[in-house]
Amino acid sequence: MRPSGRAADEMRAITIETGFTKHAEGSCLISFGETRVLCTASIEERLPPWLRGKGEGWVTGEYSMLPRATHTRGSREAAKGKQSGRTQEIQRLIGRSLRAVTDLKKLGERQITLDCDVLQADGGTRTASISGAWVALRLAVQGLMDSGAIKEDPLTRKVAAVSCGIFKGTPVLDLDYDEDSNADADANFVLIEGGQIAEVQATAEGATYDEEGLLRLLRLARTGCDDIFKAQDAAVR
Amino acid sequence: MRPSGRAADEMRAITIETGFTKHAEGSCLISFGETRVLCTASIEERLPPWLRGKGEGWVTGEYSMLPRATHTRGSREAAKGKQSGRTQEIQRLIGRSLRAVTDLKKLGERQITLDCDVLQADGGTRTASISGAWVALRLAVQGLMDSGAIKEDPLTRKVAAVSCGIFKGTPVLDLDYDEDSNADADANFVLIEGGQIAEVQATAEGATYDEEGLLRLLRLARTGCDDIFKAQDAAVR
Amino acid sequence: MRPSGRAADEMRAITIETGFTKHAEGSCLISFGETRVLCTASIEERLPPWLRGKGEGWVTGEYSMLPRATHTRGSREAAKGKQSGRTQEIQRLIGRSLRAVTDLKKLGERQITLDCDVLQADGGTRTASISGAWVALRLAVQGLMDSGAIKEDPLTRKVAAVSCGIFKGTPVLDLDYDEDSNADADANFVLIEGGQIAEVQATAEGATYDEEGLLRLLRLARTGCDDIFKAQDAAVR
Amino acid sequence: MRPSGRAADEMRAITIETGFTKHAEGSCLISFGETRVLCTASIEERLPPWLRGKGEGWVTGEYSMLPRATHTRGSREAAKGKQSGRTQEIQRLIGRSLRAVTDLKKLGERQITLDCDVLQADGGTRTASISGAWVALRLAVQGLMDSGAIKEDPLTRKVAAVSCGIFKGTPVLDLDYDEDSNADADANFVLIEGGQIAEVQATAEGATYDEEGLLRLLRLARTGCDDIFKAQDAAVR
Amino acid sequence: MRPSGRAADEMRAITIETGFTKHAEGSCLISFGETRVLCTASIEERLPPWLRGKGEGWVTGEYSMLPRATHTRGSREAAKGKQSGRTQEIQRLIGRSLRAVTDLKKLGERQITLDCDVLQADGGTRTASISGAWVALRLAVQGLMDSGAIKEDPLTRKVAAVSCGIFKGTPVLDLDYDEDSNADADANFVLIEGGQIAEVQATAEGATYDEEGLLRLLRLARTGCDDIFKAQDAAVR
Amino acid sequence: MRPSGRAADEMRAITIETGFTKHAEGSCLISFGETRVLCTASIEERLPPWLRGKGEGWVTGEYSMLPRATHTRGSREAAKGKQSGRTQEIQRLIGRSLRAVTDLKKLGERQITLDCDVLQADGGTRTASISGAWVALRLAVQGLMDSGAIKEDPLTRKVAAVSCGIFKGTPVLDLDYDEDSNADADANFVLIEGGQIAEVQATAEGATYDEEGLLRLLRLARTGCDDIFKAQDAAVR
Repeated sequence: MRPSGRAADEMRAITIETGFTKHAEGSCLISFGETRVLCTASIEERLPPWLRGKGEGWVTGEYSMLPRATHTRGSREAAKGKQSGRTQEIQRLIGRSLRAVTDLKKLGERQITLDCDVLQADGGTRTASISGAWVALRLAVQGLMDSGAIKEDPLTRKVAAVSCGIFKGTPVLDLDYDEDSNADADANFVLIEGGQIAEVQATAEGATYDEEGLLRLLRLARTGCDDIFKAQDAAVR
Repeated sequence: MRPSGRAADEMRAITIETGFTKHAEGSCLISFGETRVLCTASIEERLPPWLRGKGEGWVTGEYSMLPRATHTRGSREAAKGKQSGRTQEIQRLIGRSLRAVTDLKKLGERQITLDCDVLQADGGTRTASISGAWVALRLAVQGLMDSGAIKEDPLTRKVAAVSCGIFKGTPVLDLDYDEDSNADADANFVLIEGGQIAEVQATAEGATYDEEGLLRLLRLARTGCDDIFKAQDAAVR
Repeated sequence: MRPSGRAADEMRAITIETGFTKHAEGSCLISFGETRVLCTASIEERLPPWLRGKGEGWVTGEYSMLPRATHTRGSREAAKGKQSGRTQEIQRLIGRSLRAVTDLKKLGERQITLDCDVLQADGGTRTASISGAWVALRLAVQGLMDSGAIKEDPLTRKVAAVSCGIFKGTPVLDLDYDEDSNADADANFVLIEGGQIAEVQATAEGATYDEEGLLRLLRLARTGCDDIFKAQDAAVR
Repeated sequence: MRPSGRAADEMRAITIETGFTKHAEGSCLISFGETRVLCTASIEERLPPWLRGKGEGWVTGEYSMLPRATHTRGSREAAKGKQSGRTQEIQRLIGRSLRAVTDLKKLGERQITLDCDVLQADGGTRTASISGAWVALRLAVQGLMDSGAIKEDPLTRKVAAVSCGIFKGTPVLDLDYDEDSNADADANFVLIEGGQIAEVQATAEGATYDEEGLLRLLRLARTGCDDIFKAQDAAVR
Repeated sequence: MRPSGRAADEMRAITIETGFTKHAEGSCLISFGETRVLCTASIEERLPPWLRGKGEGWVTGEYSMLPRATHTRGSREAAKGKQSGRTQEIQRLIGRSLRAVTDLKKLGERQITLDCDVLQADGGTRTASISGAWVALRLAVQGLMDSGAIKEDPLTRKVAAVSCGIFKGTPVLDLDYDEDSNADADANFVLIEGGQIAEVQATAEGATYDEEGLLRLLRLARTGCDDIFKAQDAAVR
Repeated sequence: MRPSGRAADEMRAITIETGFTKHAEGSCLISFGETRVLCTASIEERLPPWLRGKGEGWVTGEYSMLPRATHTRGSREAAKGKQSGRTQEIQRLIGRSLRAVTDLKKLGERQITLDCDVLQADGGTRTASISGAWVALRLAVQGLMDSGAIKEDPLTRKVAAVSCGIFKGTPVLDLDYDEDSNADADANFVLIEGGQIAEVQATAEGATYDEEGLLRLLRLARTGCDDIFKAQDAAVR
């Protein structure tokens, strides 16, 4: 029934290649099927002015698509001179999602920036970004602990994200581009290992859904995130 | 228990003053307690280039806070030369919410812009904006129908929005600023009269919630939106 | 003779509603007929870098029109990414006008920003802005004196502004939009209670005037400002 | 009494070197003492979109200071990415002043841009700009008439500008930088040959003046502009 | 002698992986040692306005570094709102280099954009970009020929680029980051298969070189480009 | 053979008028034929943050063309809100060229900015800028030495620049606009008195050249720079 031939509750293949670039304190190339995002974690021993002297750190995200990550070329945001509303919305989401599982006091007075650059897009770029960013962050934090810079692990839980939607009347997991462009409703879930919800962004432009529909999507998301948590585990081990 | 003394499921006073400005095709000043937003609907008989010639119209939103709508003065976005990520996120949400109840084909080849300018902020500015924007849109559409410019009503359902959150462990409705700054989790619901969900944006920075918690917030939101629908009804009658 | 039916030397109705917003240290909604401007005064206990350490304060102005304050919707300057020349010209004028009656030494090392946001425009927005900004400033300064933060009143004189023009050959006071768009010449006068001139900006695009014409406009302006001074007095008492 | 040793009603030396650059349709280097401005008039056989098809032309001005035109180096506006409010105010003034003496219908559907670039500043850069721009415009218009592109002269009157101010209690003509920085009040007059006023911009930051004071400045300005009209005449003959 | 242990005239390992992303009409990931650049060619059947109707096409380049391609994180140009001078210089160079081997008439009225995004930087990013861009362009052009959109091959010659420099007094080929930061002089050569020079950019900040030195660098560059031409050949076959 | 009637190895007339503006610590108006550039050197006793505390100074360049320096009017970069890639490329080149002959340690902790503003363009604006900037820098440095601010001369060598190109098959020196627009290849050489090369930028868009061609251009450049060195000498003596 799905264009991809997948079952309604079936994720695309998840692959995570750690150490994809050598300079970052943590990095990986994450794929959800044909969607591929390069995630790097950069540690800086300084904080934005409004955070200094509070005895805690900060985790933030940035996001971009390469101009030809998509079917048709998009203009480069650096050339246009500003980031789109969509880009800003996504990078705020990435930051909040990772902060939801980071103990900023234990991190100490330093900032970690998670750069998520989409090399190829086929739906779900923001959810792949969050899921990959956790891996990059985990690796960077591990480095800080190995070097003795921090004592207690500030990152004891995993976070992952997946999109779900209603496609031709059926709730389905992990929309690819073909499904996404034809879905009646579309929701992104950011979930924490163990069952808690960090964030829900559910939109129903052109359609709507009811409470039951929202719950069915949430349950699909749990299934998907369980797969992602396993892939994250394997990647950082 | 709440700083405001309200019951957990109690909205702030809702007032809607229509015709607040005279040039716009539709306008109102909406208040949720001390939060006051001026909403105007402007009809333009032209469309952005990418929408022309499709036999349908467009509804979009813009949002801004006056510099001293808040406790401390914020810089003017026009002076800084760009809109913040938060502003862009909110104006995208306003546009989607209103389009969820508008039949763009029946609207015809014209654009309606909903400007939501916050004169005074005390929590819930985006939800008051959406709720007031519907009133402005309704008035503007009524004018188009009265003048014979459109035949069939493109706006047959109401849309309203409200924020809910978990405050000291209890789910509460319609957070004001004091509650919002101390809430563990915060969700904005955009609901359609009759029970459908147009949009959910639930964030749990610093905390998380489970499925049951999300549902309790959703049910509070239904209660709140029912009050808003009544106020909208009274305003446009 | 005038579209408005007013006598040549007759102001529109002036109303000033103080305390229109609650967060600002001083605020009012001023109306010159259908022109309505929200003026707020915000005190900040810091100065721009180039003013620090001189033992004196600063008073500055900002100005904006809401997009649909006017007959047809104008683009939002924050969205365009820059303020127009007209906006900058007006906000510089507001700042200079208020500084003309403020003793910056007595104000002490703090800055007061006067935000003038036009909710509805019908001609004369800059003159209503200056006249209302004085009220907001007066209220803010009164608060500083009441709290003991400053000892001596830095604001002992009033300032007000009004536009005059030559309409169908006759000098008239306080142009509204219909008159303004058809006037041969247009001058804005900023006057200080007691008869002194703070600023004159007289423009004669498409026409010109002679010395006698300029004087007649100035005398009309005195009449108008006397009315405004009375309204300011009543508002702050 | 004046730092420059000039009499109160004495202009600085005015020199106008026409044809200073070869590409422009009209150009001159104008000096008011040590203030030197390069003025060029560029004819373009096209109009901004909002002026097309009305059977008339447009005259507009642009203004800039070279970074080291002044005592200390100012940042380049192109590098900062925006023009200051002062720059915009001045270029709007230049455009209005020249349009006050141009019959746009006789000019025909073309645009003339007057670029005024200050090579060296010593007070009065905007007034020298307007006075020199008239010369450049006159030369460009003459070229159009000589080539037969236009039939009737659209520029039959001269326009010139000069600043006056109250320096140590005395009204003085044509302020240089030393005087300007110490003047109590400062006014720019744009006058038309024959006695009409095109524009007055009188500012009294820190001081004020009365009706009589304004008139005395205006009369000084007439004296100064008479000298400028003579220099313009000599330059274009 | 070289930090890398390479001989003076020895290139780093060159690898070219074609088809690295699936949406672009041509793409490759090119590596010069640890420097890795993703190059894509995007065909658009439209031209910039100033090129329309001339019966020929256009080839242009864009360049960017991912924020953490480098040792320390650089700010994202899209977030800063402008591209650096270095970025613009490089993308102009990429465009000129590729146009030097493209017959724009044979290409027909279409534009090909070569996006070069540096995933990891270790010196020589601009030369790897040009060398990889040729491969992406070749693949895109081949597609146009295969589909019959163009008849005659507009790209009959190869172009490649390499940097050379004087390191501790010795001319060396293909500087990596360690060498580049310590070189006395640094030159980029863009060469065309067969021996012609498309572009030389030789800089000697802090040092200088003489004619003989320049020639020795040029000869090294020939050696290097021969290796690159072979790798390009293998990649597109 | 050349449109200008000059011999292949003949420079245009070089004139250098020092002290062209009075505020700058060093200034000149340099002409290469009809190309005229105003060069000023501004000393500031402060450094950009990244250079502080290293015991050395900095020399940097800025470049701009007046809008009507050219045949047709170009838009003002300050109005467009950004500097073009070409502008940035040239100002980086100016800075590097002057730094190549300045001992930054001997200069001490101060910055000298060389502003090169093209008043009239006829080809070779960047090479005239570099050649004139040296004169302005020399004068400014002389002032520092005369006042005792620095002890040892940080500027013991001259630097000059000239463009050469292949015009109708013949290598020619110092291209003017007519030649430049029709040249097959175009190279800018920055040379140091005594024979060393500071910078070569050779571009062959649409054509290419071989090693011998490049050398012939370099030898022409030597001839030209010898003339410029003489003119610089005469100017600063």
